[in-house]
Amino acid sequence: MADRKPGIAVIGGSGDLGSGLALRWARAGYPVIIGSRTEEKAVAAAENIRERIPGAEASGMENSAAAAAGEIVVMTVPFSNHRPTLEAVRDAVQGKIFVDVTVPLVPPKVSRVQMPPEGSAGKLAQEILGPEVQVVSAFQNVAADHLADLEHDPDCDVLVAGNAVAAREQVIELVEACGMKGWHVGPIDNAAVAEALTSVLIFMNKRYKSPGAGIRITNIPGAD
Amino acid sequence: MADRKPGIAVIGGSGDLGSGLALRWARAGYPVIIGSRTEEKAVAAAENIRERIPGAEASGMENSAAAAAGEIVVMTVPFSNHRPTLEAVRDAVQGKIFVDVTVPLVPPKVSRVQMPPEGSAGKLAQEILGPEVQVVSAFQNVAADHLADLEHDPDCDVLVAGNAVAAREQVIELVEACGMKGWHVGPIDNAAVAEALTSVLIFMNKRYKSPGAGIRITNIPGAD
Repeated sequence: MADRKPGIAVIGGSGDLGSGLALRWARAGYPVIIGSRTEEKAVAAAENIRERIPGAEASGMENSAAAAAGEIVVMTVPFSNHRPTLEAVRDAVQGKIFVDVTVPLVPPKVSRVQMPPEGSAGKLAQEILGPEVQVVSAFQNVAADHLADLEHDPDCDVLVAGNAVAAREQVIELVEACGMKGWHVGPIDNAAVAEALTSVLIFMNKRYKSPGAGIRITNIPGAD
Repeated sequence: MADRKPGIAVIGGSGDLGSGLALRWARAGYPVIIGSRTEEKAVAAAENIRERIPGAEASGMENSAAAAAGEIVVMTVPFSNHRPTLEAVRDAVQGKIFVDVTVPLVPPKVSRVQMPPEGSAGKLAQEILGPEVQVVSAFQNVAADHLADLEHDPDCDVLVAGNAVAAREQVIELVEACGMKGWHVGPIDNAAVAEALTSVLIFMNKRYKSPGAGIRITNIPGAD
């Protein structure tokens, strides 16, 4: 039992980013529960994971049921669905680690930073979910198709923000399970950096014709 | 005359970051005008540059006079002096490129992102200075003592934001003159990323005992 891995629910897990994360966690041996707005899409996404990863433990449920079933809950939804989805899963995630991957993009100008008045989507999530939920912000800067390509690990570090240090630590394990380097970057207020950075990377992908620009942290003693 | 370099005024140039930038630009052959709140401190800082860089063209003036004398004006002041300094130099910088290096840190919690209601210091500068000034935001993430150490180039890329592409291009030349890589990151709204990132790097310096964490952009075709 010592190395039993916690079940991870991925709300919005039939989307590109959510399914890429779930795929990599399934490969690393985590049970994954795909959540989607319809059970049908969730089940299909879970089936796709089991096809790619023989022996993977992957199931599909409607979002609220998935949030209830997961020990750790990860949310990857468009910003327009951020608040309603948080309200829908609020009761189910009390006492849990909740990983908010939301980027507050405001179409059509998605390459322009337009942060919400609360400061960041992560901070807003902490406010909506309440103090008993350990909200951690991460994974905003990873290109979805890089996650889906299991032959290569994404060339991008992951900034991990949240008020609870132990929760950040656990999310850093999830980052490493995806084949990336995760960094403690401070309280949930600091989620603003990775969220805003996504607009900058979208701008750079166009400006420099990149298939998916990323960042690396430099000058940390003892790091790779 | 073709390769005559524009004179760069550095407002707040007797501080650590401003003097480090001025030192590197002087080394690269730019005439530099150090601005400070007192002419005396400015003259002393300019003298220090001429001592370290034989043949450097460096003078010192009170901030407003320096802003009038510079063809390009760079401002490195604490956030508490941001608005009054902008108002003091507004007339002198009309029609010029104005590089805002300000990080909106709010002591004592400088490792927590606390952005101004306008979104960023850079955006606020553009609002205060008006549309005839080409505000460019850059250099927030470079450790001052890395600039002062002329034996090594800082291991940190520079994110360059601003509404005028040609002005960004010119600032990228100034970044390269400092021995770093500069990137176009979009309109002045996108200054929020580098500004907020400074709090994250301060957090990481403490958390990971780094002498000055930085970032690199990855996955750009044709880049180093």
